Amino acid sequence: MNAAEFRKRGKEMVDYVADYLEHIERRQVFPDIEPGYLRPLIPDSAPEEGEKYEEIIKDVERVIMPGVTHWHSPYFFAYFPTGSSYPAMLADMLCGAIGCIGFSWASSPACTELETVMLDWLGKMVGLPEQFLAGTKGEGGGVIQGTASEATLMALLAARTKVIRRLQAENGKLTESEIISRMVAYTSDQAHSSVERASLISGVRMKKIPSDEKFAARGHALKKALEEDKAEGLIPVFFCATLGTTNSCSFDNLMELGPICNAEKLWMHIDAAYAGSAFICPEFRYLMKGVEFADSFNFNPHKWLLVNFDCSAFWVKKRSDLIGAFKMDPVYLQYDQQESGLVTDYRHWQIPLGRRFRSLKLWFVFRIYGIKGLQTHIRKHVDLAREFLNHLSLDERFEVCAPVILGLVCFRLKGSNELNKILLQKINNAKKIHIVPCCLGSTFVLRFAVCASSVESSHIQFAWKHIEELASELLKTKSEEGCL
Amino acid sequence: MNAAEFRKRGKEMVDYVADYLEHIERRQVFPDIEPGYLRPLIPDSAPEEGEKYEEIIKDVERVIMPGVTHWHSPYFFAYFPTGSSYPAMLADMLCGAIGCIGFSWASSPACTELETVMLDWLGKMVGLPEQFLAGTKGEGGGVIQGTASEATLMALLAARTKVIRRLQAENGKLTESEIISRMVAYTSDQAHSSVERASLISGVRMKKIPSDEKFAARGHALKKALEEDKAEGLIPVFFCATLGTTNSCSFDNLMELGPICNAEKLWMHIDAAYAGSAFICPEFRYLMKGVEFADSFNFNPHKWLLVNFDCSAFWVKKRSDLIGAFKMDPVYLQYDQQESGLVTDYRHWQIPLGRRFRSLKLWFVFRIYGIKGLQTHIRKHVDLAREFLNHLSLDERFEVCAPVILGLVCFRLKGSNELNKILLQKINNAKKIHIVPCCLGSTFVLRFAVCASSVESSHIQFAWKHIEELASELLKTKSEEGCL
Repeated sequence: MNAAEFRKRGKEMVDYVADYLEHIERRQVFPDIEPGYLRPLIPDSAPEEGEKYEEIIKDVERVIMPGVTHWHSPYFFAYFPTGSSYPAMLADMLCGAIGCIGFSWASSPACTELETVMLDWLGKMVGLPEQFLAGTKGEGGGVIQGTASEATLMALLAARTKVIRRLQAENGKLTESEIISRMVAYTSDQAHSSVERASLISGVRMKKIPSDEKFAARGHALKKALEEDKAEGLIPVFFCATLGTTNSCSFDNLMELGPICNAEKLWMHIDAAYAGSAFICPEFRYLMKGVEFADSFNFNPHKWLLVNFDCSAFWVKKRSDLIGAFKMDPVYLQYDQQESGLVTDYRHWQIPLGRRFRSLKLWFVFRIYGIKGLQTHIRKHVDLAREFLNHLSLDERFEVCAPVILGLVCFRLKGSNELNKILLQKINNAKKIHIVPCCLGSTFVLRFAVCASSVESSHIQFAWKHIEELASELLKTKSEEGCL
Repeated sequence: MNAAEFRKRGKEMVDYVADYLEHIERRQVFPDIEPGYLRPLIPDSAPEEGEKYEEIIKDVERVIMPGVTHWHSPYFFAYFPTGSSYPAMLADMLCGAIGCIGFSWASSPACTELETVMLDWLGKMVGLPEQFLAGTKGEGGGVIQGTASEATLMALLAARTKVIRRLQAENGKLTESEIISRMVAYTSDQAHSSVERASLISGVRMKKIPSDEKFAARGHALKKALEEDKAEGLIPVFFCATLGTTNSCSFDNLMELGPICNAEKLWMHIDAAYAGSAFICPEFRYLMKGVEFADSFNFNPHKWLLVNFDCSAFWVKKRSDLIGAFKMDPVYLQYDQQESGLVTDYRHWQIPLGRRFRSLKLWFVFRIYGIKGLQTHIRKHVDLAREFLNHLSLDERFEVCAPVILGLVCFRLKGSNELNKILLQKINNAKKIHIVPCCLGSTFVLRFAVCASSVESSHIQFAWKHIEELASELLKTKSEEGCL
């Protein structure tokens, strides 16, 4: 395919993309297929000769679309939102064309430098303390990771290295594995599965401290765990706090946890994957009170800030902690300016070596929407969640299972877990909307997350009416069966 | 920005992308800027109000392009190639529009299923043994990772878990950290820095075995290390072989190493990041002889197979080894079909949770070019490297430092490392072409890698003439200074 054909096909694709998103409402949000549907639809090996583009684009509707879960449908209320916007897509096209691999400053200075400045912009937008910003003289700074999982892992690895170095400086005989075997990291029982996964990868055991009745981690619970573990000779190294848990969007109490972490020299990492975007609105910043105690902070603009996946923003107060954990300098990656102290080599800040020019997405989105436009987007979602909550609250057959603070509503029918599992199944089998469940303690709960950027009040009303009708049907059947 | 504006701006961007790539030759391959150039060019915080798109796109030429290292310039001969093609960019546009996060089958069945089938197609294209393919009944299969670094890490973590489970089954009293502290992994002294990094992350120590005079790892060197380590009570668990090293594109001897790994129950991972793409040409498959001994295999279509970054293809013979290492199943990620045995949940195969619909790029590229078109691309690059080698060989001031097998030529001026460092500096300061160095043993070497898909014989001739002239200048100065 040459440039001339790309000009033609690219413009057709722009229209296809616009058509897809403009009319996504007409597509069934969850697909009607069974596992293994795709393989029989296409040949079992690649063609020897090139095919015509027309054949491929025809197959997008024949092969791909029937199996897509439409995350940007206004009837999608599952998981958490994933960002999507036209300016982010335009930036991604440019990113693809430049196609640089920005592992070092020299491998593409613009890629590195725009990222540093965009992370400063974003840090200011959410009200991060200045220590997290790079500026021109700061010791901190931000980086784009692929996902929050990687950010948590990087933070834990940095904490691990820091403690190993400190203890080996005190006692040169201690081996790395002796130290790691005594290390312990903490998080709440509401933390995302990726936090536990970071522990498995790093080999640092992780203990879950019990959350309170609002599903928040509290200081006394951490303190208790620390005292028990220190008495047993363990070395506490890390605490991962969550702002906006996946289960119920609860918030750990940083004002209690932070001072403990600082006093006990635990690295405090904050995972605000979903909720972080809301902090661009001053009225939600009370939820991050205590962020100044943290060593690292992360949230996903690719969730709720209209930036297409992947773009997870991660800041540290001392970038030397992060870089020190993994610096490797093979000759093939060295260049003249690298020891000048003026450059950033982001390869030391992340698990992979290669990286795309992802900061373009932030730049385009921030400038097209402005801070006000992004605030409008966040506030609209929060308002829509409250609208759903209002419907719920007026129907006494339902109960709300956790405080509704941002765009997530956790609810259930009063009654057994079994009953709610059946309700979920009915909702997802009808495929008019899509939601997923969670467990809060031993309670099976339905999660209603406001997701698509195109979702409006009419969709919330539709969703509520649909859920309410399915619940009525279910309760009627159950009552006829004498099961209630 | 609404759909109508996106239609307009998207089409303009398509033309911008086509213009950029059609005329990339006119841009200086390496930028004329100093560290810190970008920050003063833009405001120090995000705008409150949205800006006009015209302002942003104007800034691409003012702010971004002056700081870009143009990886797709035909004068770029640094590192290794990174893939780029129009069909891959079209697929990425579609990927952005669908914007699904394919961590599980249910989160977007098409995303998972196309990936499994594309990795089967690709496995067949490079001649992988059938055990690595998923098919409909296989125990193996492929997955797209972001980078080769992540593939190596996943393989090492799977090996680590497998050995821990085996040893704990034999002796229930052994703790995980006791076992890890005795584990040892191996790679050659020519392996990529990411292999050592995987060892740092996983906590499994890594030993580098010396390569032979052709920079290949050999059986006897591994055997020697294994015997010494076993005698000391260590537990060998993993060997990472390289096909096509970053330094010199050397190839480890799988036929010697493989049987040793199998006999000693070492997980053998093959990192063929760059060279793997060449195996679509039957004439290069002799280089992967012995792949059948491996447990996992990885290469980067995003390097040399015209697929835009990121797309690193990773196969395992037993997917249960990989999945077993990290399976976590929070309720919010569960769905009806997951225990049917028919579905793949790729979140268990990788470090991050989220993932893009990257297999679309493979599908578009394989179909537009066909296997023959891709073979033509590989062969052209290999021929161009030979052309450069021919020039070199006729100039007795230069020496070739490693066998030239694919698209990389390692060379230097006969003389000191210092002399060659100055030559490199002259080349990169002139900014007419861009290359990077490496060290082979203690010898400082220049690497000339055929990279851009648009590179032609004329560019190779230009590059050679330019290098040769700078060398003449340098040798003349040195001889006048009496330094030679």
